[in-house]
Amino acid sequence: MFESAELGHQVEKKEYEKEEPKLRSALLAAQMQVLERAEFPVILLSGGVDGGGKGEVVNLLLDWMDPRHIQVHAMGAPSDEELSRPPMWRFWRALPPKGKTGVFFGSWYTAPIVDRVYGRTRGAELTRALGEISRFERMLVDEGALVVKFWMHLSKKAQKKRFRELEKDPRTAWRVTKQDWNNQEHYDKFREISERALRDTSTAEAPWNVVEATDRRYRNLTVGRTILEAIGKRLERKRATPVRAAPPPPPPIDSRNVLRDLDLTQSLTDEQYAKRLPKQQGRINGLSRLKKFRDKHACVLVFEGNDAAGKGGTIRRVTSALDARRYSVVPIAAPTEEERAQPYLWRFWRHIPRAGRFTIFDRSWYGRVLVERVEGFAAEPDWIRAYREIVDFEEALVRAGVVVVKFWLAISSHEQLTRFRLREKTPFKRFKITEEDWRNREKWGEYERAVCDMVDRTSTDVAPWHLIEANDKRWARVKVAECLAEAIEKAL
Amino acid sequence: MFESAELGHQVEKKEYEKEEPKLRSALLAAQMQVLERAEFPVILLSGGVDGGGKGEVVNLLLDWMDPRHIQVHAMGAPSDEELSRPPMWRFWRALPPKGKTGVFFGSWYTAPIVDRVYGRTRGAELTRALGEISRFERMLVDEGALVVKFWMHLSKKAQKKRFRELEKDPRTAWRVTKQDWNNQEHYDKFREISERALRDTSTAEAPWNVVEATDRRYRNLTVGRTILEAIGKRLERKRATPVRAAPPPPPPIDSRNVLRDLDLTQSLTDEQYAKRLPKQQGRINGLSRLKKFRDKHACVLVFEGNDAAGKGGTIRRVTSALDARRYSVVPIAAPTEEERAQPYLWRFWRHIPRAGRFTIFDRSWYGRVLVERVEGFAAEPDWIRAYREIVDFEEALVRAGVVVVKFWLAISSHEQLTRFRLREKTPFKRFKITEEDWRNREKWGEYERAVCDMVDRTSTDVAPWHLIEANDKRWARVKVAECLAEAIEKAL
Repeated sequence: MFESAELGHQVEKKEYEKEEPKLRSALLAAQMQVLERAEFPVILLSGGVDGGGKGEVVNLLLDWMDPRHIQVHAMGAPSDEELSRPPMWRFWRALPPKGKTGVFFGSWYTAPIVDRVYGRTRGAELTRALGEISRFERMLVDEGALVVKFWMHLSKKAQKKRFRELEKDPRTAWRVTKQDWNNQEHYDKFREISERALRDTSTAEAPWNVVEATDRRYRNLTVGRTILEAIGKRLERKRATPVRAAPPPPPPIDSRNVLRDLDLTQSLTDEQYAKRLPKQQGRINGLSRLKKFRDKHACVLVFEGNDAAGKGGTIRRVTSALDARRYSVVPIAAPTEEERAQPYLWRFWRHIPRAGRFTIFDRSWYGRVLVERVEGFAAEPDWIRAYREIVDFEEALVRAGVVVVKFWLAISSHEQLTRFRLREKTPFKRFKITEEDWRNREKWGEYERAVCDMVDRTSTDVAPWHLIEANDKRWARVKVAECLAEAIEKAL
Repeated sequence: MFESAELGHQVEKKEYEKEEPKLRSALLAAQMQVLERAEFPVILLSGGVDGGGKGEVVNLLLDWMDPRHIQVHAMGAPSDEELSRPPMWRFWRALPPKGKTGVFFGSWYTAPIVDRVYGRTRGAELTRALGEISRFERMLVDEGALVVKFWMHLSKKAQKKRFRELEKDPRTAWRVTKQDWNNQEHYDKFREISERALRDTSTAEAPWNVVEATDRRYRNLTVGRTILEAIGKRLERKRATPVRAAPPPPPPIDSRNVLRDLDLTQSLTDEQYAKRLPKQQGRINGLSRLKKFRDKHACVLVFEGNDAAGKGGTIRRVTSALDARRYSVVPIAAPTEEERAQPYLWRFWRHIPRAGRFTIFDRSWYGRVLVERVEGFAAEPDWIRAYREIVDFEEALVRAGVVVVKFWLAISSHEQLTRFRLREKTPFKRFKITEEDWRNREKWGEYERAVCDMVDRTSTDVAPWHLIEANDKRWARVKVAECLAEAIEKAL
């Protein structure tokens, strides 16, 4: 992949001086259009070999374009807040909103490549990481983002020469560190691994642009023109290339499904409840205080369920087992303006707990494949691709030690009606029942199908769905507490 | 202040069991009203002596009320992201939005009190810190927040007894640490300093509630009722008590002022500019790379000025002196929804850089005393109190090592007209000139007065205004670079 970038490409000074002003005003104009339309973010990755000028190029772009609308992220060593969360968290929190440009140097590629070069990981781990990255970038593009990736390349000889030049000039000598010379010794290994990484992640939607960095003028013009062209093409479209997505298979031809198979008559007496709930709460509390949990794990709970299935009350039985310092509850309502300017999963990533903590989602990212699907708020290709994105998301959490526990609280249609009517009669609960609840109820069948598809597509080994029979509240609460305790125990 | 909290207050079990259910449903109803109106946040502080049950009380509130709308912040040791910013940053980032409740235990009082008890600070430093806190809380209340502060009190004897009880029970023994017994030895000192802190910060708008914590039932009911009453009273008002604010004095009776006294004819030749600008840029770059700056300081730049005064171009001359990894530019436009749900200064606090970094504000918090004042977007008491809040804000930054450098770019009315016309004629710059610019121009006199008042009230020793003659762009850019370099040098 690097052959074309070792040919000795050059641009004459005279040509550069003629082309550069034209390019920069065109880039500035393009940037303004992106800003005004505010329909998609531009995500630029600047990677490559040391001395290739990853940083110089970024400084150049900031000089050419309007730096007020470019956010630069030099991803050096992670902070402790970042270290105590899944590795991708720091990139999610840095994503630019629609209309803005985010430049990453030191991106999600750095750790997988460097770890492999220095033998800290095996090839299989690299493969997995690259697959994850490809799907992450695809998600970005599907969500509308323009992703442009640059790899500044220098041959081994050219790199050595560049280091020597930089060292000679007192103004730039600080840029060459011992680590750089160290890496130069590993040049061949680095080249091999990078080649592999670029190959695996040069996708149709987010290809790599390998740029020969020996001649600065050639490098600068190439980078500038590539960005200009990419923005121009993206602006021509109303949205990203439509996703080709096959819908879930039709429902089973008999009337059985995972929800109807639940035995909703299961219940507990007051006495059983009074005995069993505190026992489970004590178990959860004990687990939450274990050193191993506090240091290496965190817990994400997802509560979904039919309207009036008792999510709120169940959540309170969980929180009362926990120390207030250790959890937060995130009720999912309509996204805020800042959230709407980001990819769909961004608003959930921002609440991912650090080690030792719990985040309890009252409704969740599954809204996309439930209410947004049924009500038509999300286009079909968008909710269909969400299944896969959600599985990736949860897997990334679990791999980082987060225990993901998902509950569907199921009640019968009849039970729901009883509860709705009760709510309407109780002055204190009346605020809990709205016109919308009655409308949703009319779509019972559609919701049922969406739930079954969701379970089929997102109940994984690492993050299974727990279907909770919730006609009897006591039964539901105790079962939730049991499942939670078991899930944490299993992870430890 | 603690006398009434050492009387041995008690509530009988029977009475508690009668009162508690009534109290909790009333609290829940009050919380729902706060949430629905979404006009103000509720900020609860739970402080007090060890063993007084600061944490128990919070758990109780979460049990009584809807935990989905309460954010709990146990402010333990700061993270490294927090440590590398001014101390108040971590509290600002944790403030609840309108409609929600934020509970702090371990609040902005902890460090000042503990540092003084252990002799790490002197009395004068405590006085200063308490004054700062009072003004911070006053600002919260002026911005609409309901602030309720609890101090759980135990006498020395009662504390000892509580520790012994907790230690005896294996389920609670972990809660008593060596540090707690250590603190108990310092009980008298701790009591003295806390008394002082409570006295100084029991203001009309945010008084302390000292609660005797010996009897849990008494403590719980007292806390619950106090919150209920405070919310009830706050809900009765449309907004916080109006601020009594005296307007700035009328303009001077002759026609002189700091803007008109500027000599706008000052200029540089192309040659001078080509020589002097790079020199200053090099100086800034060098300063930004000094170890001392990177470890202990950060830099906040504020750019304000007449429309078309050349803020954008000047900012670019500053940024091109800096490494892209070290700065971000924050253009201030209309606040987002999340920002509108917070106190005015919140949207600026969130961009305060960590050590070694620069944040450049293109327009700033001064909008409140400029455009918001002149256009009537802010009520008079609100923009008048902003002067003092801004001075406090900048002083907090400077005390934490942040270099605050503020520029007003001044052009003459005539020069502005020339530039507006030029912009209209240049296709590429047309987007920079709007109807609004022309409207603002008609209010030249009012803006001039607002700028002079701003300079008079917010140009402080620690963060002075630099008035930049900007009719000649070259002159302005070089002068800005010089002022910036000097300000950083002075701070180091």
